[in-house]
Amino acid sequence: MKDSVIIKKVIESKQLNVNDHIVVGFSGGADSVCLLHALFQLADTYRLQIVAAHLNHNLRGMDSNEDATFAMNFARRHQITCVVKSVDIAKSAKEEGISLETAGRISRYQFFEEVAEKIGANKIALAHHQNDQAETILMNLIRGAGLEGLSGMPMVRDKIMRPLLHCRREQIEEYCRYWDLPYQIDQSNQETEYFRNKIRLELIPKIKKYQPNVIESIGKTSVLLEQDRQYIEEKVEEAYSEVLCYKTDKVISISPSKLLQYHPSIVSRVIRKAYMFFNTREQTISFDQVHHILSLLDQKKTEKEVQLPGEIKVLFKTDEIKIGKKEDIEKSYSEETMKEAIPLKIPGITRLVQRNGYFRCEVVNIEKMKNRGKDPYCQYFDFDQLPEHIVVRNRREGDRLKPLGTNGSKKVKDFFIDQKIPVEKRNMIPLIASENEILWVVGHRISELVKITQKTKKVLKIQFRSDKVQ
Amino acid sequence: MKDSVIIKKVIESKQLNVNDHIVVGFSGGADSVCLLHALFQLADTYRLQIVAAHLNHNLRGMDSNEDATFAMNFARRHQITCVVKSVDIAKSAKEEGISLETAGRISRYQFFEEVAEKIGANKIALAHHQNDQAETILMNLIRGAGLEGLSGMPMVRDKIMRPLLHCRREQIEEYCRYWDLPYQIDQSNQETEYFRNKIRLELIPKIKKYQPNVIESIGKTSVLLEQDRQYIEEKVEEAYSEVLCYKTDKVISISPSKLLQYHPSIVSRVIRKAYMFFNTREQTISFDQVHHILSLLDQKKTEKEVQLPGEIKVLFKTDEIKIGKKEDIEKSYSEETMKEAIPLKIPGITRLVQRNGYFRCEVVNIEKMKNRGKDPYCQYFDFDQLPEHIVVRNRREGDRLKPLGTNGSKKVKDFFIDQKIPVEKRNMIPLIASENEILWVVGHRISELVKITQKTKKVLKIQFRSDKVQ
Repeated sequence: MKDSVIIKKVIESKQLNVNDHIVVGFSGGADSVCLLHALFQLADTYRLQIVAAHLNHNLRGMDSNEDATFAMNFARRHQITCVVKSVDIAKSAKEEGISLETAGRISRYQFFEEVAEKIGANKIALAHHQNDQAETILMNLIRGAGLEGLSGMPMVRDKIMRPLLHCRREQIEEYCRYWDLPYQIDQSNQETEYFRNKIRLELIPKIKKYQPNVIESIGKTSVLLEQDRQYIEEKVEEAYSEVLCYKTDKVISISPSKLLQYHPSIVSRVIRKAYMFFNTREQTISFDQVHHILSLLDQKKTEKEVQLPGEIKVLFKTDEIKIGKKEDIEKSYSEETMKEAIPLKIPGITRLVQRNGYFRCEVVNIEKMKNRGKDPYCQYFDFDQLPEHIVVRNRREGDRLKPLGTNGSKKVKDFFIDQKIPVEKRNMIPLIASENEILWVVGHRISELVKITQKTKKVLKIQFRSDKVQ
Repeated sequence: MKDSVIIKKVIESKQLNVNDHIVVGFSGGADSVCLLHALFQLADTYRLQIVAAHLNHNLRGMDSNEDATFAMNFARRHQITCVVKSVDIAKSAKEEGISLETAGRISRYQFFEEVAEKIGANKIALAHHQNDQAETILMNLIRGAGLEGLSGMPMVRDKIMRPLLHCRREQIEEYCRYWDLPYQIDQSNQETEYFRNKIRLELIPKIKKYQPNVIESIGKTSVLLEQDRQYIEEKVEEAYSEVLCYKTDKVISISPSKLLQYHPSIVSRVIRKAYMFFNTREQTISFDQVHHILSLLDQKKTEKEVQLPGEIKVLFKTDEIKIGKKEDIEKSYSEETMKEAIPLKIPGITRLVQRNGYFRCEVVNIEKMKNRGKDPYCQYFDFDQLPEHIVVRNRREGDRLKPLGTNGSKKVKDFFIDQKIPVEKRNMIPLIASENEILWVVGHRISELVKITQKTKKVLKIQFRSDKVQ
């Protein structure tokens, strides 16, 4: 039986390496029974370690439990370890506001990854075959998919492999018959996967009447499209890192001029990729949304924005495209404003754009010092000790401060740590600085170098105010 | 009616420019009637010149003639010039060994091009719409197509435009009803386009039951895929000119090492493009053939070849892939051998590889000269007048010769013309040359510079022989 069609196709798929440690997704249906058995047959030759993993979705009451029992028994008979986990898919689907199908898929892949992680397996084998592939592609075409949808499921992606992807269902059933392998009939097909079943039970049989090899034909198409998909993905990766101005956990900034040097195929995918970075719910942007974004890119208007699902905004400015949640984008501007050092007007008012804040600098009579309160946002400096050019900016790598009341100098980073200022807030704190020294960590401490002393003749008062300038 | 869906879509298609001169493919069916009428409506705004072109396929006896009469009458009523041509599609299909459908398509496009050429039109408008597109894409998917097949018909390619490509058939019929436009029902649908009709009349109505918008969905898919196709085509063009060693009318030579630096998506298309260069019959290479060629590329065997339809051969050598007819490839080797200048061994034998020929050089007694016959492939030279380094090669741009018995020097090109040597043979003629001069056009004439004179002391005899060296 080493020369069976299935075994041959599994070998030809070139996904098996010697010493592979494989988690096999094992529903107990014909496909996964065939896969588990075929890999088991090849285990000696390839020195494989095989573990079956069964997720009980609990969608069909006792039937679900029966499947789990079947899976365990089957594995035990073949002396294969079987890991079983039980989850409430209906509940998580409801909580997440997603379909049973999506919830099931997410939970399954998570479970397989968990098992692989736990036992140190390097691969996860799934039993998808050519019929599944053809159904997926037809479904996606009918729903209106792009290249990504039409290339279907890949033979291999990350840990996941699909060694049966080039096998037809008949070949799999033939294999099970030959080896007299028992399997469970999944009744959930009729319930959870309505659309797929229409495709499988009505549409494909109809197409077969005028093209009997439709499953193989679509299979070949998917191989070709998957190759093209991979090629374009490579190019998108290159472009993405090229057009990125910067990226934080919360905001992605893209150069529109760089982006526009690319072909629309690449541009639309870069936008989609940036969007997907914020998107944990498997949502995607529609054809029309991408189209709309591309048309805005071409226009030379000053500022435009597009709202995407998941409260993600794309904000276009002439020299920058920002993607993220509204508040994160706004916040990013204040951080960014401070990235550029802004010269402090002395005397005068220096605004921090987007922060709705300003510095007021005035030279005051030394007498006024006596009335000073304890406002950490209002400080007094020895005017004659101040360098000529003073700026406001946020922290830089290597910044140092001689904190008032101490002898030595320390890294601003260590000062922040001592003051227990959380990492995410540190960029937001304005610093008053000369070229070489931090003079004031606004709201926290001034520098020993510029403090008022007995010798002070002229006093500079600097206030930071978050209110609007009148 | 300027705001009708059809007119809007035509304008949105952005294929119309002011002063366009357009040939409209006009079968007389609803689609082309709608297109002709819609363009006619826009003629003032865009200052269009419109000419209808009807090809009578003569496939349905009197009905075909009726269609032609209808087309002419319709055009006349709207004061549009209509060019009609009658061809025997059945005959040309038989002669060419192709289907009626293919023969019809080729003849139609040829006819439209002819008309455009003749009247100086810059565009050809065809009435394909979104339903045609969806049918085409489904047909191609079911038959097993790649990206090119699944992207369907492009909105624009060269002169051809399809302004109705984003309109559904219902919208077109609605337009004809609104304007009370008569049209012919094409009965040939049932005969020549069996498969397309199955898709249109059986499959799509079935799919519409679970996805009513399937035509628009597939339409969107085709827009996305067409964009990707164009992107990949650009990259293929770049790669093609990069990997090409040289290209003649008959042989394409490709560098395998350069080719292998590209992604398989690109490599397979470069091979296909090279093949298509020789292919006038719209044949293409199959999935399996391309796959086979790619697998040979990866192997490090010395020499392999693949036979493709149309008697085209792909010959793999370690440093070169040649594509062309068998005899042309063989011929190319002899030409090419001579491209590299080969130093002539004096005295000695110098082989011309693949040409099965060799030069024999020997210094001979001047007495031997007396017996010389009239063999144009055996010549005698004044040894002392010969430069030190002499090579054999074929002609180069700018080569000059001082033909024996003349005073001046002339271009070798002009010498060939004078001698009435046909262009295709010129590359095949070996030249004995020094760095600056042609000394012997083998088989034709030696140079005045190296002829035997009274002063000659030492004689070099050079023979060219096509026999194998013993």
